[in-house]
Amino acid sequence: MSGHRNIRDCSMYGDIKLFTGSASPELANKIAEYLKLSLSGVDLIQFHNENIFARLHKSARGQDVYIIQTSAPPIHRNLMELLILLQTLRLDSAGRITAVMPYMAYSRSDKKDVPRVPITARLVADMIEVAGADRYMTLDLHAGQIQGFFSIPGDVLTAFHLITDYVLKLMPELIDPVVVAADLGFAKKGRNFAAKIKAPIAFVEKRRDSNASKAKGLSLIGSVENRDVIIVDDEMDTAGSMTEAVKLVKDNGARDVNIVFVHPVLSRPAIKRLEDLPVKEIITTDTIPIPYAYRDLLRDKLTVLSISPLLGEVILRAHEGRSVGEMFHE
Amino acid sequence: MSGHRNIRDCSMYGDIKLFTGSASPELANKIAEYLKLSLSGVDLIQFHNENIFARLHKSARGQDVYIIQTSAPPIHRNLMELLILLQTLRLDSAGRITAVMPYMAYSRSDKKDVPRVPITARLVADMIEVAGADRYMTLDLHAGQIQGFFSIPGDVLTAFHLITDYVLKLMPELIDPVVVAADLGFAKKGRNFAAKIKAPIAFVEKRRDSNASKAKGLSLIGSVENRDVIIVDDEMDTAGSMTEAVKLVKDNGARDVNIVFVHPVLSRPAIKRLEDLPVKEIITTDTIPIPYAYRDLLRDKLTVLSISPLLGEVILRAHEGRSVGEMFHE
Amino acid sequence: MSGHRNIRDCSMYGDIKLFTGSASPELANKIAEYLKLSLSGVDLIQFHNENIFARLHKSARGQDVYIIQTSAPPIHRNLMELLILLQTLRLDSAGRITAVMPYMAYSRSDKKDVPRVPITARLVADMIEVAGADRYMTLDLHAGQIQGFFSIPGDVLTAFHLITDYVLKLMPELIDPVVVAADLGFAKKGRNFAAKIKAPIAFVEKRRDSNASKAKGLSLIGSVENRDVIIVDDEMDTAGSMTEAVKLVKDNGARDVNIVFVHPVLSRPAIKRLEDLPVKEIITTDTIPIPYAYRDLLRDKLTVLSISPLLGEVILRAHEGRSVGEMFHE
Amino acid sequence: MSGHRNIRDCSMYGDIKLFTGSASPELANKIAEYLKLSLSGVDLIQFHNENIFARLHKSARGQDVYIIQTSAPPIHRNLMELLILLQTLRLDSAGRITAVMPYMAYSRSDKKDVPRVPITARLVADMIEVAGADRYMTLDLHAGQIQGFFSIPGDVLTAFHLITDYVLKLMPELIDPVVVAADLGFAKKGRNFAAKIKAPIAFVEKRRDSNASKAKGLSLIGSVENRDVIIVDDEMDTAGSMTEAVKLVKDNGARDVNIVFVHPVLSRPAIKRLEDLPVKEIITTDTIPIPYAYRDLLRDKLTVLSISPLLGEVILRAHEGRSVGEMFHE
Amino acid sequence: MSGHRNIRDCSMYGDIKLFTGSASPELANKIAEYLKLSLSGVDLIQFHNENIFARLHKSARGQDVYIIQTSAPPIHRNLMELLILLQTLRLDSAGRITAVMPYMAYSRSDKKDVPRVPITARLVADMIEVAGADRYMTLDLHAGQIQGFFSIPGDVLTAFHLITDYVLKLMPELIDPVVVAADLGFAKKGRNFAAKIKAPIAFVEKRRDSNASKAKGLSLIGSVENRDVIIVDDEMDTAGSMTEAVKLVKDNGARDVNIVFVHPVLSRPAIKRLEDLPVKEIITTDTIPIPYAYRDLLRDKLTVLSISPLLGEVILRAHEGRSVGEMFHE
Amino acid sequence: MSGHRNIRDCSMYGDIKLFTGSASPELANKIAEYLKLSLSGVDLIQFHNENIFARLHKSARGQDVYIIQTSAPPIHRNLMELLILLQTLRLDSAGRITAVMPYMAYSRSDKKDVPRVPITARLVADMIEVAGADRYMTLDLHAGQIQGFFSIPGDVLTAFHLITDYVLKLMPELIDPVVVAADLGFAKKGRNFAAKIKAPIAFVEKRRDSNASKAKGLSLIGSVENRDVIIVDDEMDTAGSMTEAVKLVKDNGARDVNIVFVHPVLSRPAIKRLEDLPVKEIITTDTIPIPYAYRDLLRDKLTVLSISPLLGEVILRAHEGRSVGEMFHE
Repeated sequence: MSGHRNIRDCSMYGDIKLFTGSASPELANKIAEYLKLSLSGVDLIQFHNENIFARLHKSARGQDVYIIQTSAPPIHRNLMELLILLQTLRLDSAGRITAVMPYMAYSRSDKKDVPRVPITARLVADMIEVAGADRYMTLDLHAGQIQGFFSIPGDVLTAFHLITDYVLKLMPELIDPVVVAADLGFAKKGRNFAAKIKAPIAFVEKRRDSNASKAKGLSLIGSVENRDVIIVDDEMDTAGSMTEAVKLVKDNGARDVNIVFVHPVLSRPAIKRLEDLPVKEIITTDTIPIPYAYRDLLRDKLTVLSISPLLGEVILRAHEGRSVGEMFHE
Repeated sequence: MSGHRNIRDCSMYGDIKLFTGSASPELANKIAEYLKLSLSGVDLIQFHNENIFARLHKSARGQDVYIIQTSAPPIHRNLMELLILLQTLRLDSAGRITAVMPYMAYSRSDKKDVPRVPITARLVADMIEVAGADRYMTLDLHAGQIQGFFSIPGDVLTAFHLITDYVLKLMPELIDPVVVAADLGFAKKGRNFAAKIKAPIAFVEKRRDSNASKAKGLSLIGSVENRDVIIVDDEMDTAGSMTEAVKLVKDNGARDVNIVFVHPVLSRPAIKRLEDLPVKEIITTDTIPIPYAYRDLLRDKLTVLSISPLLGEVILRAHEGRSVGEMFHE
Repeated sequence: MSGHRNIRDCSMYGDIKLFTGSASPELANKIAEYLKLSLSGVDLIQFHNENIFARLHKSARGQDVYIIQTSAPPIHRNLMELLILLQTLRLDSAGRITAVMPYMAYSRSDKKDVPRVPITARLVADMIEVAGADRYMTLDLHAGQIQGFFSIPGDVLTAFHLITDYVLKLMPELIDPVVVAADLGFAKKGRNFAAKIKAPIAFVEKRRDSNASKAKGLSLIGSVENRDVIIVDDEMDTAGSMTEAVKLVKDNGARDVNIVFVHPVLSRPAIKRLEDLPVKEIITTDTIPIPYAYRDLLRDKLTVLSISPLLGEVILRAHEGRSVGEMFHE
Repeated sequence: MSGHRNIRDCSMYGDIKLFTGSASPELANKIAEYLKLSLSGVDLIQFHNENIFARLHKSARGQDVYIIQTSAPPIHRNLMELLILLQTLRLDSAGRITAVMPYMAYSRSDKKDVPRVPITARLVADMIEVAGADRYMTLDLHAGQIQGFFSIPGDVLTAFHLITDYVLKLMPELIDPVVVAADLGFAKKGRNFAAKIKAPIAFVEKRRDSNASKAKGLSLIGSVENRDVIIVDDEMDTAGSMTEAVKLVKDNGARDVNIVFVHPVLSRPAIKRLEDLPVKEIITTDTIPIPYAYRDLLRDKLTVLSISPLLGEVILRAHEGRSVGEMFHE
Repeated sequence: MSGHRNIRDCSMYGDIKLFTGSASPELANKIAEYLKLSLSGVDLIQFHNENIFARLHKSARGQDVYIIQTSAPPIHRNLMELLILLQTLRLDSAGRITAVMPYMAYSRSDKKDVPRVPITARLVADMIEVAGADRYMTLDLHAGQIQGFFSIPGDVLTAFHLITDYVLKLMPELIDPVVVAADLGFAKKGRNFAAKIKAPIAFVEKRRDSNASKAKGLSLIGSVENRDVIIVDDEMDTAGSMTEAVKLVKDNGARDVNIVFVHPVLSRPAIKRLEDLPVKEIITTDTIPIPYAYRDLLRDKLTVLSISPLLGEVILRAHEGRSVGEMFHE
Repeated sequence: MSGHRNIRDCSMYGDIKLFTGSASPELANKIAEYLKLSLSGVDLIQFHNENIFARLHKSARGQDVYIIQTSAPPIHRNLMELLILLQTLRLDSAGRITAVMPYMAYSRSDKKDVPRVPITARLVADMIEVAGADRYMTLDLHAGQIQGFFSIPGDVLTAFHLITDYVLKLMPELIDPVVVAADLGFAKKGRNFAAKIKAPIAFVEKRRDSNASKAKGLSLIGSVENRDVIIVDDEMDTAGSMTEAVKLVKDNGARDVNIVFVHPVLSRPAIKRLEDLPVKEIITTDTIPIPYAYRDLLRDKLTVLSISPLLGEVILRAHEGRSVGEMFHE
């Protein structure tokens, strides 16, 4: 990611126009800053009957539009706002429209593992397409396969480069560090993380004790004894699994525990649990805004890495028709 | 609408299965009662991260499914619930799926009357189709043209037969009754209403006084002096326009005022205004559930006509392949 | 609408190419003149078996194409000609194709207000899209909602700015002018017109006398006595309603009557009726060509305002990716 | 084609409903007769502004609908009528809709043999699909490949079984009969025809004499001398080519000449030419209605074979899910 | 899976018709046997130019068609054969068409984990849909998310019930059995397998030693010492990873080793490796036919469980509109 | 086709990027040479399980991409490779993607001439579109109508200009040359070829002798006696028909025989037959690569004209938005 940010004069898709919805204006502003642009103006009004109304300040005819809207609460309202912005810009004859969703809602509902349930992530992809997106951008989908739910092309990025760069700097201070994957569904990505920082890996295994009870047995596969631990996952929701994982590694003789995840969903029960959790550092990103109250409570241990330079650079390269992969030497 | 309710044994679309979302379970139950059926079971769960999850109790393979879900607050959550149910049933290989939305959200956002705005009703139609509906049912769309937003066929019904039947019974007690259309966009439908009850019509005209101020001038076109007045509209949202209309007809010498509308949206400011409004009777339907607190406050003057026999009968006829139009001798 | 007409050298959609079908070549020529361009050549042949054949003189690969074709008689033949041109240009790999239909046929068939009828305006929209249009342009649709029938973006313009500018110049000579909406479906737009010229409004109400007879009762709501009247509507077809309206306002004591409408459909019975009509001025536009014979007959009272500068300017702005809304300070 | 015509009680697509447009009511009636059914009622109105309006007498919900509409003049009006009927029935929730076009307009515009021209037959196929047809039926397309223009399935039938059966009965009276293909594009089908009646074949070759002149040289490849000739083609339009072919075979020493074609398009110049043509018999079908005046003029030589039993039987089999191919032992 | 196999007389989709392509006729025959049906006849010819041609013996109009075609070598030829059968049946107006692919090719190409690569599983899903499938059936997709690549509904089944039932019977003979997941991407499903047979789990971790070398370091996480081992995976391709895994567990002190996988892809290098592999039993299924030569070589240790009763029963239930989930008490 | 090959700097579709699949790299290199470009790099790997994997060396974001892939054996593998490249480039956000298939597989399966068969050419067109092609290029389709199978625009070129130019140079040496169409389906194009070189034409007629036997009777229509013959067809597959045709004209007294066809499919039996065939010259093109072994065997009589300058020039013009038709003065 170079410092080069002079946008090429000439693109087949007009000029970059950045819009933001209500979900993450702070992030949108940081991206705009990276690109040395101002956000394009749009009135977003919610009426008493909850209906959202949008009006662009200026026409975006023929322009290369990026709408920054993450999935933060209230998620359905914010999703609808994104869809309305997409349609508004399509009807306004924008040249190309990219939906930028740093965190994509419902990405955990990505398959039918029991009968008679939805695949809501596919539904969300369909909604984004039918509303008018030509492309999408997002980070660290729960399953990489969700890319295949879209018919339109997109850039599915990862914040793990950012996070491993940060963790690598911490490594000299850590004693015999070991990576622990908080969930078996994250085993492969956990392995990649561990490989990147050249540490071994262990796994938390969760199993229902019997069909009758809802109780679950937890066991640790691999060793953490007398080691500093880095527990990794893609997102943190209620912090329930993470709390169990921390307890489990502590019970197995771990030294300091650090936790790492890309998406700070942090649903209601999370903050209380995080406060009480005996961890040294919580490392995450700003794909979802963390309420200031939460940030205050966790001040000592919370590290939030910003994805804005990453998204800014990718938007720039998408606009100019340059490779995104080569940012990561891929 | 006859009393005939023995469902024909044989239909190309399996058996009728009724599902309800969270928006109007009471109405769904009444429809089920009309059809002498039980609602089909579905678990609808909302997680801490706001994500909705659905699981059908039984498979609906090959069945003729009707999902009852109106647009009541929280409207975006309820819209998403409808879409998730549609997709769940589609993926479960239901034979035919009908989205029954007694009131359709965003139907007032049906055209671009200024540049750079959305046509959200079309977006909602697209979302319903992409989620998997084969047909839709709704009542009294803000504009009949919204039917043309759907590619799938549907039954767009009206509650005005129900309401005029009721009003005709009141007529003998009214003195020189006159119908007043609360909004010029409702002029033509107001005329139809007036014709049905054989009363004259007058119109409320609203006009911005100047470009600079946001103040509006109101005038009444037609005469209401010494007459009992019936003000009609398709929906009541904040009751702002209705409050102005009542004041206007009163200022123009009206006697008793009754108000009539199909959809009781009743956004927050409405209830306070309705309480204070000098009207004799408020006539509406149950396309949207009215909170019990509201019903209590308005008990003396509120009449809620149920659309459940209408929807029940239409579902029956749609299932059996019989004409809906002939219910109304059309 | 400025005098600036130097087309920007650089557009993502190649150069502007204007084509015209057989329906309104005169208008197409005026638009070309406004843009200082020549019409692109195309052979349009109709064989003995009525089949239409098109062949472009030159390739339009990668160009920004506008096909001017209004809906004038014979309407089905002309509609087919438009569709054939659209497909021909799509197969020729034009860069972007805009169907410019100053008047859109079938726009009165825009909803099912009785059962078992078509929504032909939606069908026409579907046909235009399937033939290959990327965008469309039209003026004063019968209902603004028809915009929502299209999946492609479009510019739905209005000639009322043009007409009110003209009427405002007449205003000093008019005595207590009042606007009359010829049809209740036009009530809201009639109000906007009246507001623009700061005149009051009245309405023609038509009602079937009984179910049995087809006779209709007409009444005027609002007052026209001793006033000069401007009757407004969106289109004039057989002039039947207008003739009734003129008689009605005259019977109600109106002074001079002027009539205003955007689309001069002027079906067969119209011309005889217009000749005999006791009106001072008939103000319309050239969205549909008026036969020379008709123009001669109505010479004294007919004013035809040309929409060609409006369409020319909008084409220019669409081509250059500039706002259309700001032409009207919107 | 058996005499079996008791429609099976039970079909997944409701009952057969036959509708007819204005193009070929006589044929539709014959098909209805074959099926021992009445045509379903529909009001088809054309207003002064040429707009067509349709209203079904009864609902066709869930029924198995067949719309009989050939391509006869005025072809664009009749095509639009077909499309409007299709959409009306789709919006009325018909169970399955089949467009029955005995002759399909524009089927000669089936490829781009020079640049910058349309493929109008594909456009027509697209229009029929977008209007709502689930299936189509037609006879003897100009090129069999046009089947591939449709995404929906269809039955493309041929009247040549009917015609060869008729010709085989004439054969004993013919002297050394030889088949002549009137056009090289019909060479292969002409060969099939000749093989069926066990006669040799010859070809008319047409060639432009030079690039400069539009004159064409005609030659006969193969021998007709002292033989009775049967000239075959798929359709007769202006009868120009046929006139040339008759002259050519006569000049080459042919005895009696008979002409055979499926589709009697018979554009304006045709009737005069046919009257004067020295042929013994003109054998065709009723895929397109032949004006009574024409039939009178050609009475002596004209034989019109009716395709109604063929279409009736195919509709019956399509309805009942029985094989169509086995009607022809295929 | 009950013994109930009397197919219900009445289904909205005609009768069951089973077709088979060339990839797995043996399996198709077993399914037909389960359903007490004969396979429907179709000629499948491959010309010298490799083009495949299909012709159905009898029409399948309106029938409920199931095409059995797994992905076995030559996979592209067999995929094309499936697509051609789908289109043939669609054009023949089959009532409903289900593509039954016991093993789905390319399901390992299900996401872009590096830039500039395809998601071929989505492409295959798109091809199956565009060819005309209304539904699909398959077993044990590499990732469950691939269900979301389809727009059509489907039944994604698992053979693990079958396999665990078999393994549970072996359990009494095994000494301290432990399950080993051969790949971290299979960690979660491996855990489910282990839970079902109430055994602990361990994992094979593979890691590239450095960026420069292509060599990989293998380690075992969890313990297998002195235990009988069951190594599980979803498919076996070249047997490379499995060979490494067997060596690893042996090196870590395992006793007997059994290996389990659903899909016996068994690419060329596999058979040699399997022959030499020090394993007690190889348990798999017939989703892909195993060449007789291979079966002979592995006779002592190979157990092939047949999925035909499972697929037969699911086809029956899909046909009759009964739940598939309840077969597994889900 | 001028020598002008300086690609215009500015196109709405980025720069030309040429990719080649495995089917015809030699042709792709020649096209690249004509355009003075290098082929863009892509790794195309086939795994042991036959799965093809593609990875682009560099991103093609926003570029104007041409994928050269003819239909040569193994045709299904090569077709899949084309589809995978199309999807890879679409997912990589290429600006415009053109599938260049000099010979299109399955183009002889272009209609249902008997019931219950596929139209595989339509299926191939659908597959190419669903994979992501924006445009296509091909030469001499078996039937021009196949253009209508595509919804996307394309350039369907002909090599006959190239071939007639070559043959015209031979003409002075030929004695009373006559063109013979090898198949009646090629009659019209044979006539065009004959007209271009100002020679007469004759036809090979093939007819099954009876329904029972598969034997066919062959006859020549027109005269070849004492003339040099040029037999023409669009492709040569097994050379079966051609062998018969050569024998037939020889039996009818022809002098030297030359054979001409665009596409050298040359399936297995062809080479043996061609070797033995008493012909003077075999004229064809490189739309399909001819194995070196074949070229050696036929060295004396084989002339292969290269279509690379034609395709190179058309790609250039497509890129620059210039007419392709004018290359041929059309």
